[in-house]
Amino acid sequence: MSEASQSAEIISVGTELLLGEILNSNAQFLAQELAQLGIAHYYQTVVGDNVLRLQKAIAIACERSRLLIFTGGLGPTPDDLTTETLADFFGVPLVERPEVLQDIAAKLTRRGRSMAASNRKQALLPEGAAILPNPTGTAPGIIWQPRTGLTLLTFPGVPSEMKAMWQQTAVPYLRSQGWSQGAIYSRTLRFWGIGESTLAEKAAAQIRLEDPTVAPYAGHGEVRLRISTQAATEAEALQKIAPVEQQLRELGGLDCFGSDEDTLASVVGDRLKTSQQTVSVAESCTGGGLGSLLTAIPGSSAYFWGGIISYDNRVKVNLLGVDADVLAQQGAVSAEVACQMAAGVRDRLGTTWGLSITGIAGPDGGTDAKPVGLVYIGLASPDSVESFQYQFGTFRGRELVRSLSAHTALDLLRRKLINI
Amino acid sequence: MSEASQSAEIISVGTELLLGEILNSNAQFLAQELAQLGIAHYYQTVVGDNVLRLQKAIAIACERSRLLIFTGGLGPTPDDLTTETLADFFGVPLVERPEVLQDIAAKLTRRGRSMAASNRKQALLPEGAAILPNPTGTAPGIIWQPRTGLTLLTFPGVPSEMKAMWQQTAVPYLRSQGWSQGAIYSRTLRFWGIGESTLAEKAAAQIRLEDPTVAPYAGHGEVRLRISTQAATEAEALQKIAPVEQQLRELGGLDCFGSDEDTLASVVGDRLKTSQQTVSVAESCTGGGLGSLLTAIPGSSAYFWGGIISYDNRVKVNLLGVDADVLAQQGAVSAEVACQMAAGVRDRLGTTWGLSITGIAGPDGGTDAKPVGLVYIGLASPDSVESFQYQFGTFRGRELVRSLSAHTALDLLRRKLINI
Repeated sequence: MSEASQSAEIISVGTELLLGEILNSNAQFLAQELAQLGIAHYYQTVVGDNVLRLQKAIAIACERSRLLIFTGGLGPTPDDLTTETLADFFGVPLVERPEVLQDIAAKLTRRGRSMAASNRKQALLPEGAAILPNPTGTAPGIIWQPRTGLTLLTFPGVPSEMKAMWQQTAVPYLRSQGWSQGAIYSRTLRFWGIGESTLAEKAAAQIRLEDPTVAPYAGHGEVRLRISTQAATEAEALQKIAPVEQQLRELGGLDCFGSDEDTLASVVGDRLKTSQQTVSVAESCTGGGLGSLLTAIPGSSAYFWGGIISYDNRVKVNLLGVDADVLAQQGAVSAEVACQMAAGVRDRLGTTWGLSITGIAGPDGGTDAKPVGLVYIGLASPDSVESFQYQFGTFRGRELVRSLSAHTALDLLRRKLINI
Repeated sequence: MSEASQSAEIISVGTELLLGEILNSNAQFLAQELAQLGIAHYYQTVVGDNVLRLQKAIAIACERSRLLIFTGGLGPTPDDLTTETLADFFGVPLVERPEVLQDIAAKLTRRGRSMAASNRKQALLPEGAAILPNPTGTAPGIIWQPRTGLTLLTFPGVPSEMKAMWQQTAVPYLRSQGWSQGAIYSRTLRFWGIGESTLAEKAAAQIRLEDPTVAPYAGHGEVRLRISTQAATEAEALQKIAPVEQQLRELGGLDCFGSDEDTLASVVGDRLKTSQQTVSVAESCTGGGLGSLLTAIPGSSAYFWGGIISYDNRVKVNLLGVDADVLAQQGAVSAEVACQMAAGVRDRLGTTWGLSITGIAGPDGGTDAKPVGLVYIGLASPDSVESFQYQFGTFRGRELVRSLSAHTALDLLRRKLINI
């Protein structure tokens, strides 16, 4: 029960969430805010617009958490029942608040609408609850302590209203009540070219730490390690994080490409910009995806000049200068064609580097000799060209093979730029 | 308890969700799928990577639901503990499955990696549980009935793996077990070039219907109307949906570009393939994003030949033949340059159509005369070329401006292909 004494729970009310009609972005926002405030938060619940099930969810949450944050169910329609269900659960009558009624009337007037009977419902709040003002919408929330040691906050489901109310009133309130004691700070290290399990074994000692904690995440070829700690100030947090970060960077070596907001494209871009070098791309199976990644970075025009999407073999020959005989003998998906594409785009655009991709993204087009997932990446430096062969697997799907190809090409250039 | 006899609960396991680091898109996907299958679903729970709290969440879910769907916590690292916590909760030993171990080894080998000790953990499944195969990743899930009347399904947290496993194995399993009785069927109509509120006003009569229901959704420039109904058979559902679909297609006119799995790129591709025409692209601010959308469609090599990413002005002049004087006088982001890019790529690649994009994606580079969000799209037909000017707004962010540009270019070609 000691855990409950300091933990929050987010309860999202709305049948539209159970039908999958909307993403629960409110829960993510509140989770981030709670982490920032250093308020522990162990559970989230989603429940529909149903009195009995909402009551059951309230009963469970009261047992395990001391700060219950509700979103949704404050509107004027009959299926909005968060406020009355809470009042009923704690056995407290609803009372009409004249100041709320006045505020609703004023807002409706400004929009050229008159007060509907259903709007009156929004002025009924549990006796003893404080008003959590809604600066933009008609539905206010409440700040309520129906029992000693239990605090409830309610918000409408509309994200913009919820966020404004959270920031303007809830955060100052929670701070004033001593809920926020030292925030959680974290640093994420990013890796490419190493699997999650291999990295986790290398970093086993760090992952076992209790403070700061180190947690691995993986997805779409990238692996991340998040170092987190709770501290009174950012400086104190950094002091705890820095030595662990240093250890992880050392054991990650070249596989660690950056931290926090870095991407492979931004890291490659920084290196090119610093060394005043440029790059161009020749893309077959990725069809422009590599160029799209590079140009996602603002200011990429400083080092990315462009490229040629050579999806059809005629484009490889006519615009990139790939040898038609080599193409016929080795096939478009071959080491030699990858090299010629990379050198061709480097020469035609006049860039320092040329990067090429040719492969079989699937689902069709694979053979026994050249299965789906086979990809060649060509890398032309100012005076040489080399190719790299990958087998991204026959089962991963077209989009993932394309994404892995483009990111791997960036990673190859990144390593090359470090090693020259 | 009668309610529990037929209802599902989604339990998302992962501290990253409690820290707000990721959006719980898995829960939305599963919620939509359960609705489609007609399986009732009254609660969702999010809990961190913590044995005690996960056990408490399992205990609560068992009491109120009969089908528990877990996502997350199947990975190889120590904080992945869904499988062992379930086995422990139900008092069943974990058993190493040789077929799973073999599958993991094969997948790692194909990626050129060796088996780490931590990977072995993923082959340990509760005695009596069936394997829920993971076609792409190393972590399989389970289908398990630890008690009469209670079914558990587990999935990894990686969305692409979870979705593939759900569709390939879980859906057929649930249907075979009679979970899906009288399913919800739906048809989604897709629109481009009309705002959500305008479309909602046009379709007001349909949106008021009670059966089938019509619900509007919007995001990233596309608006969708989902027509849904519950019925015993698909034929019965289609009979209810068809007349409403017909009405909505009529009032949507050319703005309705397709339905269900259609994308602008697939619809454009179908038309080009049918008429045996081809297209090439010249991209500046999108940097390859338009080519990437076109080549996301399997078989796109039949009509997409490639293109030129002319990010730097030298590439526009040297490779696309844009007039250097026009470039100097009008600027790269101009109607005339868009036209010359489109005609240039059409001529150099020898395709029927040429499509070009030049614009200011931001956040920098805008001026009073040419603000961020200003985009010109050029469309070259076999014997003419025209340009279209857009202002996608100064506040929408670089990625959205680039995405809107690429999709709008596809939409322009789509309308042209319908009208010729």
